[in-house]
Amino acid sequence: MAAGPTADVRVVRYPAGTADADVLAVEEPVEIRVDGDPLAVTMRTPGDDPELAAGFCLTEGVIDHPDDLERAEACTLADYGNVVLVTLAGDARGRWQERKGRVRRDLYLSSSCGLCGVETIDRIARRVGPLAAGFAVSSRVLESLPAAMADAQPTFTRTGGLHAAALFTPDGRLRLLREDVGRHNAVDKLIGALLLSGQLPCGPGVLLVSGRASFELVQKAGRAGIGFLAAVGAPSSLAADAAARFGMTLVGFLRPDRFNVYAHPERVVA
Amino acid sequence: MAAGPTADVRVVRYPAGTADADVLAVEEPVEIRVDGDPLAVTMRTPGDDPELAAGFCLTEGVIDHPDDLERAEACTLADYGNVVLVTLAGDARGRWQERKGRVRRDLYLSSSCGLCGVETIDRIARRVGPLAAGFAVSSRVLESLPAAMADAQPTFTRTGGLHAAALFTPDGRLRLLREDVGRHNAVDKLIGALLLSGQLPCGPGVLLVSGRASFELVQKAGRAGIGFLAAVGAPSSLAADAAARFGMTLVGFLRPDRFNVYAHPERVVA
Repeated sequence: MAAGPTADVRVVRYPAGTADADVLAVEEPVEIRVDGDPLAVTMRTPGDDPELAAGFCLTEGVIDHPDDLERAEACTLADYGNVVLVTLAGDARGRWQERKGRVRRDLYLSSSCGLCGVETIDRIARRVGPLAAGFAVSSRVLESLPAAMADAQPTFTRTGGLHAAALFTPDGRLRLLREDVGRHNAVDKLIGALLLSGQLPCGPGVLLVSGRASFELVQKAGRAGIGFLAAVGAPSSLAADAAARFGMTLVGFLRPDRFNVYAHPERVVA
Repeated sequence: MAAGPTADVRVVRYPAGTADADVLAVEEPVEIRVDGDPLAVTMRTPGDDPELAAGFCLTEGVIDHPDDLERAEACTLADYGNVVLVTLAGDARGRWQERKGRVRRDLYLSSSCGLCGVETIDRIARRVGPLAAGFAVSSRVLESLPAAMADAQPTFTRTGGLHAAALFTPDGRLRLLREDVGRHNAVDKLIGALLLSGQLPCGPGVLLVSGRASFELVQKAGRAGIGFLAAVGAPSSLAADAAARFGMTLVGFLRPDRFNVYAHPERVVA
């Protein structure tokens, strides 16, 4: 069943009211299995599935380090096109057997959230390693990033239906971009691509997301050691609180001529 | 811990680089318990929590009918401000005890999704009742709805950070609007408000959502008997497939001067 990232559909376009062809972003479920155990099913856009699975495993606490991963690969059996098999390495195998109950419970609890925001942030902060530091980004570079991301979004241009996550160097060069119907998935695919290509910890840079900055995105970025998160949309209150606690710079409403800094403004220079 | 829908924060605004006050949409976890059993934890914007819980129970298959619900109320114990207690009525109590394992498993599987899109749609179609029919909406009325929704969004105006779901009559009058940081939650709050006020089945009308139309939103609308879903953003391929299967009209990219109809265009008249 695994398809490409887009699907051709028939549509009636108004105001003309005429039938026409259109292209939509594909949304399909994928199951991630870790050492044979079902971990999660997520609705994603097909493509980069091993990266999605690897990134998900890191950002949701299945593994703590790139060396914990032996491999991630799409299942090649014909009936299992939407299954990704993750194989752990060395000691990580035993740790997974011990912690899998807790990890799945945390996923059930909507991505590791307890009932009290403050308690949650503190608990998750203990799982966030040192973030990239010792760098700053100029406001002019920041303001140039949304256009650079849009230029590099191949599928969005055709469908208008995909979120993007892009990693830039501090001087504004694009390192990597991933797209997905789910904004969490776009971030997991990007982090998984860094992981699988030996680029973690990723060092100084800015992670730009096309939508809003929720708590979960701050959490995922923190798990990958990213020190600077920028969003085209609005942050939530909990996203701002978590970024402040983790030591992460958080920028919101990033536009060509303005933006707001919600946490750790020391990494921004005019 | 339950807060209001917005939080005051400090921000550094560029290009000026000056410190200022800002208002963000609050994001906090809430737990929904059904007859004492934990059902789910979701990240939501505080406010309308009983409506959120009631809507969630209907759209995720905990209950099938408004009469199955005795009440939904925020827990009044001081330490449990982010817990909503749902109490079932009559026969629904026994049915919940029988089906709770399956419902929770379905939630774990990312909102009822199996591994094959087609199989999933067919399975869910069996849980979707008859949709509102026998009405049509003019293209001119449709094109007026996004502005009408924006005018009625009190919190978004201040924070820029909230999704909205709004129900309109076929001639374009606003019946109800709800906001949330999560677009699924906005729809659940709206459906829960209809349920708690005895307005289900809701009859002819258009459900407008501020973001993109994913499969889950089509599924939730179908469970509430809504026959017409319109989105300001793009639909996914699976959303279009599901709407076609359920008999639901699906409009995407709804703008003041144009839109596309992805399923059941017979409910749109020029």
